[in-house]
Amino acid sequence: MTPTPAPFLPQRAGFASGATTPRAFLEACLERLAAWEPRVGAFTFTAVDSARAAADASTARWKAGRPLSAIDGMPSGIKDIIDTDDMPTQMGSPLFEGYRPRFSAASAQALRDAGAVILGKTVTTEFASTQPRGTRNPWSLDRTPGGSSSGSAAAVAAGMVSGALGTQVVGSIIRPSGFCGVHGYKPSVGGINRGGSLDYLSQSTTGTIGASLGDTWAMARAVAGLVGGDPGCAGLDGPVEPPAAIRPARLALLQTAGWPLLHAQGRGALQGALARLRAAGVEILTSDTTPALAALEDATAEALAITMGINAWEWRWPLAGFVARDRGGISPSSLERFEQQGRMSRAEYAALLGRREAARRAHAALAARCDAMVSVTAPGAAPVGLGYTGNPIFVVPGSMLGCPVVTLPALASEGLPLGLQLLGAKDGDAALFGVAAWVEAALAG
Amino acid sequence: MTPTPAPFLPQRAGFASGATTPRAFLEACLERLAAWEPRVGAFTFTAVDSARAAADASTARWKAGRPLSAIDGMPSGIKDIIDTDDMPTQMGSPLFEGYRPRFSAASAQALRDAGAVILGKTVTTEFASTQPRGTRNPWSLDRTPGGSSSGSAAAVAAGMVSGALGTQVVGSIIRPSGFCGVHGYKPSVGGINRGGSLDYLSQSTTGTIGASLGDTWAMARAVAGLVGGDPGCAGLDGPVEPPAAIRPARLALLQTAGWPLLHAQGRGALQGALARLRAAGVEILTSDTTPALAALEDATAEALAITMGINAWEWRWPLAGFVARDRGGISPSSLERFEQQGRMSRAEYAALLGRREAARRAHAALAARCDAMVSVTAPGAAPVGLGYTGNPIFVVPGSMLGCPVVTLPALASEGLPLGLQLLGAKDGDAALFGVAAWVEAALAG
Repeated sequence: MTPTPAPFLPQRAGFASGATTPRAFLEACLERLAAWEPRVGAFTFTAVDSARAAADASTARWKAGRPLSAIDGMPSGIKDIIDTDDMPTQMGSPLFEGYRPRFSAASAQALRDAGAVILGKTVTTEFASTQPRGTRNPWSLDRTPGGSSSGSAAAVAAGMVSGALGTQVVGSIIRPSGFCGVHGYKPSVGGINRGGSLDYLSQSTTGTIGASLGDTWAMARAVAGLVGGDPGCAGLDGPVEPPAAIRPARLALLQTAGWPLLHAQGRGALQGALARLRAAGVEILTSDTTPALAALEDATAEALAITMGINAWEWRWPLAGFVARDRGGISPSSLERFEQQGRMSRAEYAALLGRREAARRAHAALAARCDAMVSVTAPGAAPVGLGYTGNPIFVVPGSMLGCPVVTLPALASEGLPLGLQLLGAKDGDAALFGVAAWVEAALAG
Repeated sequence: MTPTPAPFLPQRAGFASGATTPRAFLEACLERLAAWEPRVGAFTFTAVDSARAAADASTARWKAGRPLSAIDGMPSGIKDIIDTDDMPTQMGSPLFEGYRPRFSAASAQALRDAGAVILGKTVTTEFASTQPRGTRNPWSLDRTPGGSSSGSAAAVAAGMVSGALGTQVVGSIIRPSGFCGVHGYKPSVGGINRGGSLDYLSQSTTGTIGASLGDTWAMARAVAGLVGGDPGCAGLDGPVEPPAAIRPARLALLQTAGWPLLHAQGRGALQGALARLRAAGVEILTSDTTPALAALEDATAEALAITMGINAWEWRWPLAGFVARDRGGISPSSLERFEQQGRMSRAEYAALLGRREAARRAHAALAARCDAMVSVTAPGAAPVGLGYTGNPIFVVPGSMLGCPVVTLPALASEGLPLGLQLLGAKDGDAALFGVAAWVEAALAG
């Protein structure tokens, strides 16, 4: 049984004509839920009855020619660190077992207000950090789906939903999307209002995982259109429908600190993709001939250490409160982070912020000289085992830079999915989607 | 009965020598609580038993020579939009009646961890916005104490606590501090971690109201020392003990848009204070001879409209969720704000952010040329009546600029307190306290 995502956007013509309905589309998702969920474990909570009611309401709106948004009727999941007033929100932690928030997070509220059909809450690692919570990769059940948005990626990969909300501060959207062979989108920092979600670290971003590139855009754009970006940020902007494909003139190959770890098959797949892009007229910049790219590679060489230090400091609260409440309910990896922050000083944190800012300046300088950066999402296929969500070395630069990132399920390594990652200019999300649409078509053609 | 604040810092010598104890100091506060609280209504919840236990624990620490911090034993209040895991957190709204958060906010957790004696939760206007919740001004019971940190200011003024946490996005710390004749401190934006507090708007800041200038510093600094600033900000820094007085060379008189409204008595009091400062050798800059100050006055002329627009947009979530849940439980003023945000576009919001940024640049240019800006906290004494928390026109520039602000109870108008406001350079909080200490001494001398 091969996992097959269920793109939503193409369904809408049928909804409009009456050839099919959101309810019928949901039922197909529910069939895949029945088939896959017992083996994959993508959800912490499902709400089949309320999803059917929401799909019926959407069906009526489409019939009346009045859908609420571009994603009205879209079967959706919500990562379980995002508060929902009608479903438990358990943060991947026993400390939040059965927790029922009074109000929904901004993104969850917006998804419902946009008419999406919310099927349930998807598994997150503990506090969206590193401790996995058992979800399996639909492509290979003995492997991790990646994390921390583990359930969102697995549910989309298996076609149980068309899209799901995720969050990323290290690699939590792009990494699992790559391992599960689906599309992932991490907006520019501040692009989507994080209110009511546990992902309030300074480089954390709410984003989407979808069955198609367009699904990731439409879902994110619908949410931002209703609740905006983070306070102080104008928020994600651009067309409501996915941006049209635009051929890039120049793509910069970002050879991250993880480059030496890249599996020969993944490297071969990437090189093949780059050759096709070159053949289609795209110039591929590399650091040996592009000083601005070399400078960025230098500035992001320690992206993982810088990010983990920043995160550790910013987790001092609430982690101290969690530990005080129930130390035994905290995973060893979180306890280790708790110890790490206790050893940090304000000056060290400030220095890390300075290094991040320098890297962002280096990226801005490069971004003015190319249409996007290109990379892979991991050193290879998802690792075997459920105890580790995979190496974030390829995805952490995009998080630290605060730039928009998408991943396309365009590569393979070891016979399993590997994502082709595209990174855009800060707040150039719509332009990045235009490039990504072109790249996807060029590689598929 | 004249309200008399109860400064904490001078008590510590007695705690150290054994001449007095935190428990004895708390009991004196409790006597004032018994005398004042029935008439003032500063608290939504008091925890006398646990405060006594905390004071006893502090007493033991002082006896052992091991206080936890500079504020170990300080009787304290916490504004009721700040989550506390051991007391209700009701947000000044019936929608949160009896709400018990699972975990404490960063600032509340830090206050407890610093050894402060937390006496209770102080009254806030609805959602820290404009609808008052009945607290009276201890100086004149038929008048507002100001808002939104109404209870924090009133409790400190009447000596029921030595300090209290407040929050400010328009004027919610400095305005009530001025009206109640106490010291208030709004840190630079980002200075104190706002995690777990409802004040997540982009120019909102957690701060302190205290019985002395030093109390406001020591409380804020102790909190920031434990939980840092907002994610992405290095956070409040400086000495643990209040900075020593430093004579300013130049102070800039900020004549805000509210200037024509200033009561003749308030104006006279300010002019008297400026004359004393001039006599002590301080140059007072005014906009007619200082172009950078004139530029800042221009850039902040519409500070109130800009701020209210930014806030309205940023309140779209969660206000939409509140209204959907219980429209009847929302005040008319909040409903009006809800309508306002519905009429705004992302482009309008982005334009307001741009204007705020321009004002911040104008302030940075001026701040390089003077030691602080000086102004008053309101057009005059607290207005009669409990339905309106007072005109924010003098305090909103400091909020919009994101700069540190302190107010000294150094002026009077109409026989009641009026605050002398000092505004410093962004992240120059400690330097501002040095100036404020000198100014306070110069005016008292």
